[in-house]
Amino acid sequence: MLSQAYSEVPEEQVEEGITLRWVIGEPEGAPNFAMRVVEFQPGAVFDAHEHPYEHEIFVLEGEGVAAGPDGEMPMGPGVALYVPPNEPHGYRNAGTGILRFVCVIPHQKGT
Amino acid sequence: MLSQAYSEVPEEQVEEGITLRWVIGEPEGAPNFAMRVVEFQPGAVFDAHEHPYEHEIFVLEGEGVAAGPDGEMPMGPGVALYVPPNEPHGYRNAGTGILRFVCVIPHQKGT
Repeated sequence: MLSQAYSEVPEEQVEEGITLRWVIGEPEGAPNFAMRVVEFQPGAVFDAHEHPYEHEIFVLEGEGVAAGPDGEMPMGPGVALYVPPNEPHGYRNAGTGILRFVCVIPHQKGT
Repeated sequence: MLSQAYSEVPEEQVEEGITLRWVIGEPEGAPNFAMRVVEFQPGAVFDAHEHPYEHEIFVLEGEGVAAGPDGEMPMGPGVALYVPPNEPHGYRNAGTGILRFVCVIPHQKGT
């Protein structure tokens, strides 16, 4: 068993105002999927994009909006979001504090 | 994209004082893994057990202890825990409030 506070994991900048921490993944021996913690500063936007793998998201803190083909959905503490493979999706921080969520993805086999 | 507050998902009782909610899984079309939210009432204990699949855990709230072959590890908000396949593990709520965590597991193929 491995234990670590997410805040101790080095963060990577994804885009301006958006960081990602890989809290559990292949380096820890996880065989199937990786857990990341994502943070959006106030006003940060990640534009719509898509990829062949799914997201399973759990919102920890803040107030945001997720946008998909069916419109916009609110992101707030305790909200779980499922983004299917190949579905366009984007997020923005719509609040005054940090938007923080857990995002789990499968290990990406091949390209 | 699907969105749901975890608290809207019906809870299943696992053991006395311990409930589980399947917030994202095969019914939602998730192809690889399932996200659950687990709650321990104060004093609740889940004894050591093991299974052939891993856990990726993120603690949301409360104060607990996870026990594994290498001893005990504290569970508190923001702590990520990785439990490898086939490793004995147990949990207990060591605080005065609810212990709540996200626990992600792979879909179980076969028996």
